[in-house]
Amino acid sequence: MNPLSPTLLQDATDIPVMVGFSGGLDSTVLLHLLANAPGRQPGSLRALHVHHGLQSVADDWQQHCIELCAQWNIPLQVAHVDVPRDAGRGLEAAARDARHAAFKVHLGQGEWLALAHHQDDQAETFLLRALRGSSVDGLGAMRGQRDFGPGTLWRPLLNVPRAALEAYAQQQQLHWIDDPSNDSADFDRNFLRLQVMPLLRQRWPHAAAAMARSAGLAAQAAQLLGGNDADLLQQCLGNGDTLQLSPLKQLSAAQQARVLRLWAQQQRLPPLPAKGVQAIQQQLLTADSDQQAEFRWQRARVVRWRDQLHAAPLLPAWPKGWSQQWNGAEPARLPDGGMLFLHGAAAFDQPLLLRQRQGGERIQLAGRNHSHQLKHRLQHSDVPPWLRAQLPLLCDGDSVLAAADRVISAPLQAWLQAHGGHLEWQPPDPVN
Amino acid sequence: MNPLSPTLLQDATDIPVMVGFSGGLDSTVLLHLLANAPGRQPGSLRALHVHHGLQSVADDWQQHCIELCAQWNIPLQVAHVDVPRDAGRGLEAAARDARHAAFKVHLGQGEWLALAHHQDDQAETFLLRALRGSSVDGLGAMRGQRDFGPGTLWRPLLNVPRAALEAYAQQQQLHWIDDPSNDSADFDRNFLRLQVMPLLRQRWPHAAAAMARSAGLAAQAAQLLGGNDADLLQQCLGNGDTLQLSPLKQLSAAQQARVLRLWAQQQRLPPLPAKGVQAIQQQLLTADSDQQAEFRWQRARVVRWRDQLHAAPLLPAWPKGWSQQWNGAEPARLPDGGMLFLHGAAAFDQPLLLRQRQGGERIQLAGRNHSHQLKHRLQHSDVPPWLRAQLPLLCDGDSVLAAADRVISAPLQAWLQAHGGHLEWQPPDPVN
Repeated sequence: MNPLSPTLLQDATDIPVMVGFSGGLDSTVLLHLLANAPGRQPGSLRALHVHHGLQSVADDWQQHCIELCAQWNIPLQVAHVDVPRDAGRGLEAAARDARHAAFKVHLGQGEWLALAHHQDDQAETFLLRALRGSSVDGLGAMRGQRDFGPGTLWRPLLNVPRAALEAYAQQQQLHWIDDPSNDSADFDRNFLRLQVMPLLRQRWPHAAAAMARSAGLAAQAAQLLGGNDADLLQQCLGNGDTLQLSPLKQLSAAQQARVLRLWAQQQRLPPLPAKGVQAIQQQLLTADSDQQAEFRWQRARVVRWRDQLHAAPLLPAWPKGWSQQWNGAEPARLPDGGMLFLHGAAAFDQPLLLRQRQGGERIQLAGRNHSHQLKHRLQHSDVPPWLRAQLPLLCDGDSVLAAADRVISAPLQAWLQAHGGHLEWQPPDPVN
Repeated sequence: MNPLSPTLLQDATDIPVMVGFSGGLDSTVLLHLLANAPGRQPGSLRALHVHHGLQSVADDWQQHCIELCAQWNIPLQVAHVDVPRDAGRGLEAAARDARHAAFKVHLGQGEWLALAHHQDDQAETFLLRALRGSSVDGLGAMRGQRDFGPGTLWRPLLNVPRAALEAYAQQQQLHWIDDPSNDSADFDRNFLRLQVMPLLRQRWPHAAAAMARSAGLAAQAAQLLGGNDADLLQQCLGNGDTLQLSPLKQLSAAQQARVLRLWAQQQRLPPLPAKGVQAIQQQLLTADSDQQAEFRWQRARVVRWRDQLHAAPLLPAWPKGWSQQWNGAEPARLPDGGMLFLHGAAAFDQPLLLRQRQGGERIQLAGRNHSHQLKHRLQHSDVPPWLRAQLPLLCDGDSVLAAADRVISAPLQAWLQAHGGHLEWQPPDPVN
């Protein structure tokens, strides 16, 4: 049985659809199927052709698309995109990104973007993900339907073998353009398509269908788990963006792993590797409550502090011995990218000195007779340890007037009150 | 870094371990690692060699294993198994079943069975499962540890590439036997090992490690989902083995699918196919409550009846017009394999007739003046519709005395009371 029947696309006939139309076999069949789908509302279908300008024949494609859509009476838009050739992720990935960006710009509110990915594409994607060691989320490969910009991305042919598309095209006497980039642009995918899949089909004729089915089941599992993960993360979140240790410890190891990964993702940290999950479970979750422990990977770290896990940024170190005069008139730029402002007052009475903490500093606080060790004051403040080295000290000679805006000495506090001023410290951005 | 260090097997050193020892490279390395693991309790290690008798050289292997274990001072048992050559699942599957049965017989209570499957085996298993369209449970491939007979199955080398095992064996100057069946017995696996994996490695040198990682993540996902599924199924179970519709309808479609599959599995039905899940969701869950709907696959069916889903067996039909004399002295064998017994009394006063329902029968009940339609009596009984055609009617000429043991006429009831007898119907077994 040919899985391509005119009724395949009978769903969603009242929803406006924009077809991503390259002029190649797959999207020509998709456009034809949608244009002839029983029940589709007149005027609810249009096409978008993305002109990549990558190949010399791109203008011919555009012309072909224009003529075909005119013949079928389907409105067509053409979007020209520039594909950066040196984005470092390969030409095919760059072209895909540019194409998707164009789709998002042109897609209407609530409109569905129909793309012609088929079962063989899906099987290749599944294998590529497995060759990267992906979790079920990745093994789920392409989704049949998902949120996309202002609308929805829809892949109605994901369960249809490419051979069925070709048979349909021939039966309907469609004309399409063979994209020469299929043979070259994405080397990994083409290696699978041209070498691995034919070998697998020798022994398993339905290899692509089977792998696409596994992908679908993995996507289903990922969706179910994702719902659970979000619930569990919600139970573990502290104030702000921290994870509370005690609810986290109640979870199974597998649940902890998933919650940690989801949290890292929401904190915009790089993907947490397996050995990071393990280190957090074995060291951070079991550390004594007064002990500070951390795991670092790439340019990120997770720190245990005060019974919570914090995504602590890695901050640039200050040059040794750095100091700078500052009179408060202009904001001070600190060597790590942080800033210190004096608001409300024009300037200090005389230039003061900014420098980094060196240890051993003392500070005179309001209402106290003796000076305090700055280190102790910071330990009792809410300044997390990984920010303490970044606090600029404001000094008058040997006397410490303030540690950023967090600890203010009695003399400076008096001066600020008298002048209606206050300090504001803007901490540095993390290293990217 | 060679992932095989003597400390790899430092876990579980206080647990008694039986190594499945073939004499091949993998299990020789495993046995050596365990025998030399720091901390392993003396006397906690033994080996079992399964002698398949499949190959002419099997006696030589056995001899080799005996000598090696004697040299290493490890107690060895040899289990002889017969591998049925015509079991219909292929020789390798039959050998594996026989081997596992022998392992279970010989494994002690709480003992761990250590098997030498490695990362390359795991990658092959992952691919084989994907080529069958498996769900995440199947993609999880081999588990590092799972319940097995009276103990635990343990695969400590599952993350170690085969090349590392070979390097270790050479470094330690181990002797092993090359199993010629590796090259022939399991054609699918060997096709992957000898053709597909080398092709993948050309472009992805770490293909096996990546796929093994995906398998591990899929297993983790399967375990998490399995816990959820069991909880959800518990919420939906009716009395006996039915599924209640109303809690089932509260679940998401993906959850329903998993609960239905788990339920079918627990009912020992064949695996519920995707189109079965869909049919149940689209027809059975939405049917009017007084409507009976069903889905059939292979030799099984699921029926909606009285707001529950039932796993209704498919029963053999009776020959048209079948009837048989029965005096009650011996149990009656019915044509579908069911049985009817007269207990407590020797025999009826005269031979009666057994036949199938034809429709239109009436029956005279105790304490009533007029006769009732048998059909109505059955509709109000707890006999499910799929069993009603299988009820043997006990007749005296044209007069219906009983429908199996479920509906008994006034005259028969009086006779049974007078003679201290009762009927017992044993319904037929489902078709296998």
